[in-house]
Amino acid sequence: MTQRAYIAEISNYHGKDVKIHGWVYNKTGKGKLLFIMIRDGTGIIQAVIFKNNLKPEIFEACQNLTQESAIIVTGTVSEDQRAKGGYELQANDVEIVHIAEEYPISPKEHGTDFLMDNRHLWLRSSKQHAVLKIRHEIIRAARNYFDNLGFTLIDAPIFTPNACEGTTSLFETDYFDTKAYLTQSGQLYMEAAAMAFGKVYCFGPTFRAEKSKTRRHLTEFWMIEPEVAFCDLNQDMDLAEGMVEYIVTKVLENRQDDLEILERDVSKLENIKRPFPRITYDEAVEFLKAADADFVQGDDFGATDETIISEHFDKPVMITHYPAAVKAFYMKKDPQRPERALCVDMIAPEGYGEIIGGGQREDDYDTLLHDIKKHDLPEHAFQWYLDIRKYGSVPHAGFGLGIERTVAWICGRPHIRETIPFPRTMYRLNP
Amino acid sequence: MTQRAYIAEISNYHGKDVKIHGWVYNKTGKGKLLFIMIRDGTGIIQAVIFKNNLKPEIFEACQNLTQESAIIVTGTVSEDQRAKGGYELQANDVEIVHIAEEYPISPKEHGTDFLMDNRHLWLRSSKQHAVLKIRHEIIRAARNYFDNLGFTLIDAPIFTPNACEGTTSLFETDYFDTKAYLTQSGQLYMEAAAMAFGKVYCFGPTFRAEKSKTRRHLTEFWMIEPEVAFCDLNQDMDLAEGMVEYIVTKVLENRQDDLEILERDVSKLENIKRPFPRITYDEAVEFLKAADADFVQGDDFGATDETIISEHFDKPVMITHYPAAVKAFYMKKDPQRPERALCVDMIAPEGYGEIIGGGQREDDYDTLLHDIKKHDLPEHAFQWYLDIRKYGSVPHAGFGLGIERTVAWICGRPHIRETIPFPRTMYRLNP
Repeated sequence: MTQRAYIAEISNYHGKDVKIHGWVYNKTGKGKLLFIMIRDGTGIIQAVIFKNNLKPEIFEACQNLTQESAIIVTGTVSEDQRAKGGYELQANDVEIVHIAEEYPISPKEHGTDFLMDNRHLWLRSSKQHAVLKIRHEIIRAARNYFDNLGFTLIDAPIFTPNACEGTTSLFETDYFDTKAYLTQSGQLYMEAAAMAFGKVYCFGPTFRAEKSKTRRHLTEFWMIEPEVAFCDLNQDMDLAEGMVEYIVTKVLENRQDDLEILERDVSKLENIKRPFPRITYDEAVEFLKAADADFVQGDDFGATDETIISEHFDKPVMITHYPAAVKAFYMKKDPQRPERALCVDMIAPEGYGEIIGGGQREDDYDTLLHDIKKHDLPEHAFQWYLDIRKYGSVPHAGFGLGIERTVAWICGRPHIRETIPFPRTMYRLNP
Repeated sequence: MTQRAYIAEISNYHGKDVKIHGWVYNKTGKGKLLFIMIRDGTGIIQAVIFKNNLKPEIFEACQNLTQESAIIVTGTVSEDQRAKGGYELQANDVEIVHIAEEYPISPKEHGTDFLMDNRHLWLRSSKQHAVLKIRHEIIRAARNYFDNLGFTLIDAPIFTPNACEGTTSLFETDYFDTKAYLTQSGQLYMEAAAMAFGKVYCFGPTFRAEKSKTRRHLTEFWMIEPEVAFCDLNQDMDLAEGMVEYIVTKVLENRQDDLEILERDVSKLENIKRPFPRITYDEAVEFLKAADADFVQGDDFGATDETIISEHFDKPVMITHYPAAVKAFYMKKDPQRPERALCVDMIAPEGYGEIIGGGQREDDYDTLLHDIKKHDLPEHAFQWYLDIRKYGSVPHAGFGLGIERTVAWICGRPHIRETIPFPRTMYRLNP
C-alpha cells in the first residue's frame, strides 16, 4: 500500500509514491492538464493531474472539484524548482472524499465581522494559519525557556475566592453555595509555590471583564507567569529579557516561512538581543513631556503613551519604579523612595504596547498587611497569602507575559483578535 | 563573590565554594556541631555547621533556627557517600534571611481538611513536591509527544455559548448582555482546527459543576485533547497508546527520585508498553457478569465497574463500541451496528479509572444534524460546527486525556486532590 505522507515532510519522499490527504486550495488548468494546489495543514503542494495517467471518470470528477473539497491524491513526488517548497506531485490516482459546498471565504475583501463569524473556517487561510503557527512556537519557546532553567510548572487555579487586582473587572460564577471569580492572574499562587519549588511558572488562561473595545483587549487571554524565590528586581529583569530574546530567536529559527507569509520585517526581530534598555518611570515621563503628550504626571501610561515611549527604542524597553499608587498592593516599595514600586513593565517596540508586567513582591508581613487594609481588601481572604511572609519569607519577584500581545508584536498584526484561535471580546462569544 | 548554586546541580561544584539559598527542612546536632538539612525547591542537602568555622554570633543564631526559616549558607561542596545525593556542604557562613514562626505542618498525622486548608504550605512537603514534579513531567511529555509528531497547539476558548455534553453540569457567568458557559471540552473547536491544520491539540483547564464527592472528581481539571483529520478509530487508538507509553517512559527516565519518594511500585510502570489490549464494550460486560457485578447491560461503566475490568489487565485497556445512547451526540456510529459508537475509553490499570475518552466523530452533515435535533440541542448554536461537514468533510478522530487522573495513576495516589497544585472541588475553593 502506498504510504501516507504529510506535505511538511515531502522532501523525504523524493521519487517515491505517496498518498497526500488534504483539501483543494486552488485549481487551474485546461484540456488534459489540471493543477490542484492541495493543503493538508502542514503545507501546500501542487498536484499535476494529467488525463492520460488516471482513469477517465476520475479525471472527469476532478474537473468538478470545488475549493476546500477533501481529496486523497496518490502520486510520485518529483522535484520542481519553480514550486514553493521545491516539490510537486505527479498524480496517478485521486480519491474524492467530499465535495465542498461553495466556500464562503474568497480572496476578495471581507468585513471583519464576517471573518470573525466564520473564524472556524478563516483559520484555514494562509495568514491566519501563519499567525497561529507562530503562536505555537512562542508558547513552546516560553515553556522550554523556563523548563531549561529548572523551573517547575505549577498550574494556578482558575476559580478563586479572591480578587487579585480589583473587583470591577471580574467574571463571577455561582459555585455551589457560594460565589467564585475567574482568575486574573496566577501570581499570588505562584508566590506560594516559589517558596516550595524555588523557581516556578504557570501558563493558562486569565480573564478580565473589561468593557474595552480597543484592539489590544480580550476578555480571555493567556499568560505565562514565572516567580522566583531569592530574586530581586534586577534579576527579574534579566530573566524577562532572556525569555523574550529566546522566544524571538526560536521564531526566527523555526518559522521563517510563516513570517514571510505575514510579510513581517524580519530585520526588526533580528535586532531583539540582550541587553534591553532599562529606564525609570521618571525618564519615560520625560519622553512624554518632550512629545507634548496629554499625560498627567503620576498616572499610569496609556496605550498612546506607550507608543511614544517605545519610539525611542528599537528593542523592548523596561520601565521601572512607577508610582506605587498606580500599581497593585503586593508590589514591594523602593526602600530609597517608598512612594515608588520595585516594578517593571516591558513595552514592545513598534507601538505594540505592554507585553510584560512584573516586579519584586512585598515580603514583610506587617507592610503587606498594612497594604491589604489600605486597599480595602478582605484580610481573611488573604491570610494564606500573608502566611508566605510568616514561614521563611524571602525576597522574591516574577512577571507575567501576555501571549496574545507578544504574538501580535512578533507577527506584526495590528489587532489582537487574530492572535488567538477563538477570540473572546466584549462583543464576541462566537463561534 | 561566591557563586549561587541550586542543589539539583550541586555535583557540578565539587570542591568549590557556593551559596545555597533555601529553607531549614530539619536541624540536629549538639555541642560544636549543627546539621541543617536545607531545601531550595530543587533538592535537599545537609549543611555541616562546625562552630570553629563561623563567627561565634552566627553559630549562636543558627542554634535558634526554626523549621522553614530562610537562610543563605556559604560553604564548600564535599562528597559524602552517606548523604542522599552524595554531597554535603561544609558551611563557613550563614546569613539568616527570616526566622519562621512555628510551622503548622509537622511529621505527625494531620487531617485532610487541615492539610488542604494549608495547601499553600503543604506544597513544601516532600510527597506533594514529588507528585507535582511528576505532574510537570507528564504535561511536558504529552506536549512534546504531539509537537514531535507535527501537531499544532490550538488553544480552545474557555468561554463558550454552547453546552457540549449537556447543560446540567455547566458553570455559568454573566457575559456583558448575555450568558457564557465555562468549557467542558475543547473538542468541537479542535475539530474545526483539525480541518485547518491537519493535526492539532489543545491543553487547558476544563470545568464540570458536578455535585460529586468522589475521590475522582474536581470541578476544575486539565485536559490535553488531540484531534486528527483523516483518522479513524484504530488510528486514534494507536495515537493514544503511543502517547501514554511515551508519558510513562519519560516519567521513568526523569523522575526516578520522585517515584521513590512516593514509594511507587516502578515495575508496574515499566510494564506499560505498546500494544495495549483493545476490547469491546460487550467483552468488558462479560467481565462484569463473571464478577457478578451490579451492572445493567447498556449502561455506561461506573468507577467500580472500571476497577473490575482493569483487574484483568496489567496495562491500560481500551474499550470500544459502547452503546451510542450513553455517548455524546457527535460520536460516529458503527456502520455495521448503528446502535454502537466508534468510541474508545482507556482505563488505567490498578483501579485508577478512566484516563482517556475519545473516538471518531460524525462527519456526515445530515446524520449530525439529526443527532443534534434528537438530543434537543439548539441547532443555530451548532451551525458553525455543522459547517465542518459542509466544506471538505473528512473522517476524523481524537481524544481527551485527563491530566489529574493520569497523575494519580502514575504517582499511585488514591485521591485526585493531590494531583493538582490548588484543587477545586464541590467543597473547596480555598486557598
